[in-house]
Amino acid sequence: MSTQSSTPNEVPARLAQVRAVMAREGVDALLVPSADPHLSEYLPGYWQGRQWLSGFHGSVGTLVVTQAFAGLWADSRYWEQAEKELAGSGIELVKLGPGKPGPLEWLAEHTPDNGTVAVDGAVMALASRRTLDEKLHGRGARLRTDVDLLAEVWNDRPALPDAPVYAHLPPYATVSRAEKLAGVRAALRERGADWHFIATVDDIAWLFNLRGSDVSYNPVFLSFALVSQDQALLFVAPGKVDTELAATLGAEGVTLRDYHQVGAALADVPAAARLLVDPLKVTCGLLDHLDPAVTLVEGIAPSTFAKSRKSEADAVHIRQAMEQDGAALCEFFAWLEPALAGQVVTEVDVDTHLTAARARRPNYVSLSFATIAAFNANGAMPHYRATEESHARIEGDGLLLIDSGGQYLGGTTDITRMVPVGNPSEAQKADCTRVLKGVIALSRARFPKGILSPLLDAIARAPIWADNVDYGHGTGHGVGYFMNVHEGPQVIAYQATPGPQTAMQAGMITSIEPGTYRPGQWGVRIENLAMNREAGSSEFGEFLSFETLTLCPIDTRCLLVEQLTAEERGWLNGYHREVLSRVGPLVQGAALEWLQVRTAPV
Amino acid sequence: MSTQSSTPNEVPARLAQVRAVMAREGVDALLVPSADPHLSEYLPGYWQGRQWLSGFHGSVGTLVVTQAFAGLWADSRYWEQAEKELAGSGIELVKLGPGKPGPLEWLAEHTPDNGTVAVDGAVMALASRRTLDEKLHGRGARLRTDVDLLAEVWNDRPALPDAPVYAHLPPYATVSRAEKLAGVRAALRERGADWHFIATVDDIAWLFNLRGSDVSYNPVFLSFALVSQDQALLFVAPGKVDTELAATLGAEGVTLRDYHQVGAALADVPAAARLLVDPLKVTCGLLDHLDPAVTLVEGIAPSTFAKSRKSEADAVHIRQAMEQDGAALCEFFAWLEPALAGQVVTEVDVDTHLTAARARRPNYVSLSFATIAAFNANGAMPHYRATEESHARIEGDGLLLIDSGGQYLGGTTDITRMVPVGNPSEAQKADCTRVLKGVIALSRARFPKGILSPLLDAIARAPIWADNVDYGHGTGHGVGYFMNVHEGPQVIAYQATPGPQTAMQAGMITSIEPGTYRPGQWGVRIENLAMNREAGSSEFGEFLSFETLTLCPIDTRCLLVEQLTAEERGWLNGYHREVLSRVGPLVQGAALEWLQVRTAPV
Repeated sequence: MSTQSSTPNEVPARLAQVRAVMAREGVDALLVPSADPHLSEYLPGYWQGRQWLSGFHGSVGTLVVTQAFAGLWADSRYWEQAEKELAGSGIELVKLGPGKPGPLEWLAEHTPDNGTVAVDGAVMALASRRTLDEKLHGRGARLRTDVDLLAEVWNDRPALPDAPVYAHLPPYATVSRAEKLAGVRAALRERGADWHFIATVDDIAWLFNLRGSDVSYNPVFLSFALVSQDQALLFVAPGKVDTELAATLGAEGVTLRDYHQVGAALADVPAAARLLVDPLKVTCGLLDHLDPAVTLVEGIAPSTFAKSRKSEADAVHIRQAMEQDGAALCEFFAWLEPALAGQVVTEVDVDTHLTAARARRPNYVSLSFATIAAFNANGAMPHYRATEESHARIEGDGLLLIDSGGQYLGGTTDITRMVPVGNPSEAQKADCTRVLKGVIALSRARFPKGILSPLLDAIARAPIWADNVDYGHGTGHGVGYFMNVHEGPQVIAYQATPGPQTAMQAGMITSIEPGTYRPGQWGVRIENLAMNREAGSSEFGEFLSFETLTLCPIDTRCLLVEQLTAEERGWLNGYHREVLSRVGPLVQGAALEWLQVRTAPV
Repeated sequence: MSTQSSTPNEVPARLAQVRAVMAREGVDALLVPSADPHLSEYLPGYWQGRQWLSGFHGSVGTLVVTQAFAGLWADSRYWEQAEKELAGSGIELVKLGPGKPGPLEWLAEHTPDNGTVAVDGAVMALASRRTLDEKLHGRGARLRTDVDLLAEVWNDRPALPDAPVYAHLPPYATVSRAEKLAGVRAALRERGADWHFIATVDDIAWLFNLRGSDVSYNPVFLSFALVSQDQALLFVAPGKVDTELAATLGAEGVTLRDYHQVGAALADVPAAARLLVDPLKVTCGLLDHLDPAVTLVEGIAPSTFAKSRKSEADAVHIRQAMEQDGAALCEFFAWLEPALAGQVVTEVDVDTHLTAARARRPNYVSLSFATIAAFNANGAMPHYRATEESHARIEGDGLLLIDSGGQYLGGTTDITRMVPVGNPSEAQKADCTRVLKGVIALSRARFPKGILSPLLDAIARAPIWADNVDYGHGTGHGVGYFMNVHEGPQVIAYQATPGPQTAMQAGMITSIEPGTYRPGQWGVRIENLAMNREAGSSEFGEFLSFETLTLCPIDTRCLLVEQLTAEERGWLNGYHREVLSRVGPLVQGAALEWLQVRTAPV
């Protein structure tokens, strides 16, 4: 493992410039979140101001700057990286954790009476502004959201991305945009709203059957949408939609507008209108353009619910994508195993070969997230990423964790598998076995339709808790259909708030990925995607069960097979029969041989 | 089964009288909840105004009266009873259910603009008034909580109970009142409060190591308490505390005041004071006596948390109480089984004999709730109660459900067992087996300390959901120590809100009681009490596990033993070994023989 080469630290100079602007503007504290106007997970460079100003490159973190203090709040995934990257910057790492004050609490406590806190309203959710406003209110302090203090000092700010927008076409797009728009409009009538504003780019891409590549991994494009019963305005930068697609959209009642005209369009919403917005998913800066008389109807976007429920036609494509993804993995593993025996293999090589194997598959578009290939101690960091500058050689004994996924025209994949290297220890095998028990327990579960998804988490964890073991991340996140690999509204995590929007419905896809992390030693995670399927109804209501979608062997050499119950062994053997029968026809030669060996019953 | 004899229906006349008073007072709608000034589960007759005015005798229900309408809201447990009892009264049964408007929603919709709704503030929680106020606010309607409209028409209103108050003494009281008061005072300092007002009678009985018998089953007495750093005022009706106990309390710094002086005492709380109250557990009528300048600090009473965590010394007494309770059950079952074979046995006989068996045990005080002895179809009603007027004979084939419990000086018990009668069907045995699997799954669980208790419910339900079966009640409620059989703050129920107060801590006692109800056919429930025990800590945190407290055989003749896994069978045999070894020494003759037979391994 080598360490990242350091570049000259420009952070102190940048901080000094920003502090000068703050002083001039009478701002006591500046809040810089990791966010963009779409409140996306992956940010275009233009909106990575927190990274530019702090020098911390982790994807999530919040910076607070005053004249006397600068602090970066980050959760435990990022502490090691942040300590390294913040060294010498004058910025203090503030460790986020349960019960510890976050940046908003810090601001509420430290802002002087009658002081001013500034945040760029363009990147702050309406709900977050309300929370901070309320916290500051007590001391008479003021929140400004009308200024972007970075703008005048950030000279080399990247441009906004300009990747083309393209149509997601049938047969992979299984519901027409007319039908989707009709569904949203019906929901608006039901909620008594006449307009609906959407800022989340996955909702927009889904609703209009369009895709793009403005950010990494998520096939989305920067855009806003404003929908009423007779209008559908789509705000995209000029030139990104070609003439032909623009004509098609126009013919279907979708009016293209310049991305930068969204504020003006919001200002034109009639004062008597009732506008549906999700306060967690729309920024206050944009809503400030509205006539104050407009009534906000607040709630989750109808598209968020609709896109979470994959259709039967979607399911057909998803199963095919899973088979192809499984085949790519077979080819990759058929290369990896002999390679490990005969040559130097690094974590980066894993990423390279696995990406290449996926790219050979039909309908492949891109990775769905940065591959995690993590050997032994690196596997103990759930969000580890090997880079050219910093990575491990895979040698000796232990466990290699590989978490990867692809975007296909007909689905999105996300899978984690453990690979034995040399001779894994009994303790490593015990961890793998326990985690697999968790996967099996939840995969086999049946549950009432509509149950709040966080309430299912204990089923996966019970076999892991049984040995006083636990893991800090959720057990499952929602997954899109050729769309974001992380999507809501459901989430299987006992740490999550079981709000009514998390109710389980047929067609939702969720990951099942328990884990165990031993810092400095190794990490284990096994992950399949599963789709909620109707499981019949009785006098007690309607029930759902999981259809496991992911198709790739679970390496039994990492397991203490004798610790599996008969039921667990039955599940594993049944799963491997299914993998062999569906992936087998898509691979030949060494890949097929590998598949046959690794699906042998235990 | 016979039906209850009906008495002349006086309800229409009572409603007419109340409507006349409403008209005179300018009240458009009257709300009559099932509540008293202590917001208790069991109400003294004086506070059963809803029952008096509606003729509905169920323990939970809400009445709304306007000039043109009268409706009683009740949940599914009470529909059958309410339909019978409301017949001819002019009161409509409104069925409560998920997503249906409750009485507060009804009032918000139907109260005329600028209209007036009245409710006796003496029985309305502060939080409920806030909710209703907010709902009425929209239409300019007004809420009055300063009148008791029933008072002048309810001529034969029962007196308040006057049972004596007595001390809960060592060794059963394991923590002195001085120590408990010190704990509450420390919590007040921590929360920045200088006074604390308590209206919940179980909190008061616990805090002062006192008990009473003002209501059925709960060993409590009507009282309020007001505590500061140097005062502890206890409001009880004169004559209920004898001179000797009064002197003891006085010597320990507890000042007795008249029950009816509580309003005046609240009015005397200094305007500068910060008063800790639980808005869900204190009525608005009482708090209206406060100087408006008093600052409310809102939160759960410190005593509610403290009493939920039983000490190691408590646990010793509780285990003894469980052994005695198990012995009483052995004697009862040793009578029941031959009796069923040779004579007519009714559900009422079950109650009589079981109560008598408990009463023979040392330190027995009373039942902890009304015995549920329910044969076949009656068992499908989770809150069924056999009466002299209406009950079933236990004959033929089927299942007898017996849910019962006792109050002992050293603990409170609550147990449900299934008894086979004749030859239970395969379907009945399948239900018992599945429910037992749920009991075992949760009983064996280990879980992180502090997990929110509703999140554990899925562990008990997973084996039941597996067959598309579910049940409408929670899996577990908290249980007191010679105290209420239902106490918070924890609750194992996926229907409950997993608030931070539901966090699992060592020493809490919770029931584990999954069930299955087949309306018109039979019902199954198996219930044990279990105490949270420290289960060690690891790099992943601290863990808890359940110690099963209840000691009584689970009748294996109701089970399809072959459907139990090896692990489940192991748990059941281990449980029965424990029952035999601990209860065996307390019984002789037929009871011991019965115990030996029913604890035979499977």
